[in-house]
Amino acid sequence: MIRETPVMTSDILDELTGATLFFKCEHLQDTGSFKLRGASHAVSQLPADCPGVATHSSGNHGAALARAASLRGFAADIVVPEGAVASKVDNIRRHGGTIHYCEPTQAGREAALAALVETGLTPVPPYDDDHIIAGQGTVGLELLEQVPNLDVIVAPVGGGGLVSGIALAALTCEHHRPQVIAVEPAGADDVMRSLAAGRRVDDHRPDTIADGLRALVGERNLALIRQHVEAVLPVSEAQIISAMGNIWQHLKQVAEPSGAVALAGVLAHAERFRNQRVGIVISGGNLDVAERLAGL
Amino acid sequence: MIRETPVMTSDILDELTGATLFFKCEHLQDTGSFKLRGASHAVSQLPADCPGVATHSSGNHGAALARAASLRGFAADIVVPEGAVASKVDNIRRHGGTIHYCEPTQAGREAALAALVETGLTPVPPYDDDHIIAGQGTVGLELLEQVPNLDVIVAPVGGGGLVSGIALAALTCEHHRPQVIAVEPAGADDVMRSLAAGRRVDDHRPDTIADGLRALVGERNLALIRQHVEAVLPVSEAQIISAMGNIWQHLKQVAEPSGAVALAGVLAHAERFRNQRVGIVISGGNLDVAERLAGL
Repeated sequence: MIRETPVMTSDILDELTGATLFFKCEHLQDTGSFKLRGASHAVSQLPADCPGVATHSSGNHGAALARAASLRGFAADIVVPEGAVASKVDNIRRHGGTIHYCEPTQAGREAALAALVETGLTPVPPYDDDHIIAGQGTVGLELLEQVPNLDVIVAPVGGGGLVSGIALAALTCEHHRPQVIAVEPAGADDVMRSLAAGRRVDDHRPDTIADGLRALVGERNLALIRQHVEAVLPVSEAQIISAMGNIWQHLKQVAEPSGAVALAGVLAHAERFRNQRVGIVISGGNLDVAERLAGL
Repeated sequence: MIRETPVMTSDILDELTGATLFFKCEHLQDTGSFKLRGASHAVSQLPADCPGVATHSSGNHGAALARAASLRGFAADIVVPEGAVASKVDNIRRHGGTIHYCEPTQAGREAALAALVETGLTPVPPYDDDHIIAGQGTVGLELLEQVPNLDVIVAPVGGGGLVSGIALAALTCEHHRPQVIAVEPAGADDVMRSLAAGRRVDDHRPDTIADGLRALVGERNLALIRQHVEAVLPVSEAQIISAMGNIWQHLKQVAEPSGAVALAGVLAHAERFRNQRVGIVISGGNLDVAERLAGL
């Protein structure tokens, strides 16, 4: 249900960081993000007479779930917060999902999803779920097969499905086990604050261009991060935008803001990665291209 | 001296055009365009005691020649028209070239190059040269190896090195020889006018966003196009920009305007390609990323 995504390299970005970088290109995954891995794994566990699936999503999990569901012949109803990136909403529709708009808050998302589940649909949560975490972890398993002897794998953290799955995948290494490091927008720093507080914070008002990383970290994900993730590094909005530019210019790849966050972390904390072999996850590539072309 | 570039596909773009499309990703060639193929082939023919090379270029041939020269330990002096894309000029410098600005006219380019050649440097022309044409033709040879049974190969035309080389490459097919079709911005239609006039036109005032396609077609290139290229199709500026957006959105690849011209031609003349297996050359990916990020 998924494709093996390629790994790309760039002499120029190696020079810029003083490290040897291996970019895991999940923006080239079907539906344009890693989210298809978790969604397809979760959907593969459902019985054949499932009446349909539902979730809330700012976009990428929604498109992934719609595609995974359609591959099994299920309907998919997706709760989308108002203000979501238009091309991501189009992407959900293109893969056969039905859109239900809600208020752009955690409470608004959850209420709208609860209403759908009451009609009999099976909820497939975006990140706080063992099957989802296991599916996202295949990013790490694949990367470890593609690139030997990585010292560290760097991934963005929003809800935490990706980085907690990769951290579990890294545990399968018997020799030369890579560290796993999460990068979080300073404007959506719920993971850093939760780790500092010793429990998940609930005052989460994300303000970041990285629309895929605005969700509050999941409880399962936070527990796995605490146990298996070496560090969580912050990045500023300017650092995210600059990293997007570097990916566009030197890899010729279209990363969405969230997809550039891991590289932003390596650039912003370069001393930490110097002379290491670093896997960097480009988590997605869905953005409103029309806006970027407007100046032409 | 060059890399084999990948071929990408997209179900969505196939659906949009009614054809089966194979994108030859020359934006992923070293230096960010196909131009390294011709430049490296030309430089490989030079004697080891060559005192250095020179050319005029809006950017991509300049960077390619600088890199090819540096791989053989030669200096490279590049005449660049004022107003060239800033990131392309940076790209020439990054690969070790020395920049000499000139007036942005054909006469200005040629005068500045002549002055450099008088100092003893060996000129390596951008397209009107047998070695350059042969080198660019390897795009076609590689694509024919990678994708069997193509019905047609579509490439942009500016100076004509790429499409004339591909047309020669297609002649090597003993069975199922693909047609070769050129696409030209309507705002730089010197090839279409030259074919209609029966001789190369000299009133060429290009006005197109596709900065890599503003040069006047070469005499050798025009002769090969007349003999071996099936058709030259025009595209508007809006069609070029729309095709760039399609490549960004559906392939997640950064094409420069010239690099999107071949797809623009297939989209604008879709009836001609329906149900065919179509090779489309994305010729380059060097553009001013900073401008695209300015709105964020």
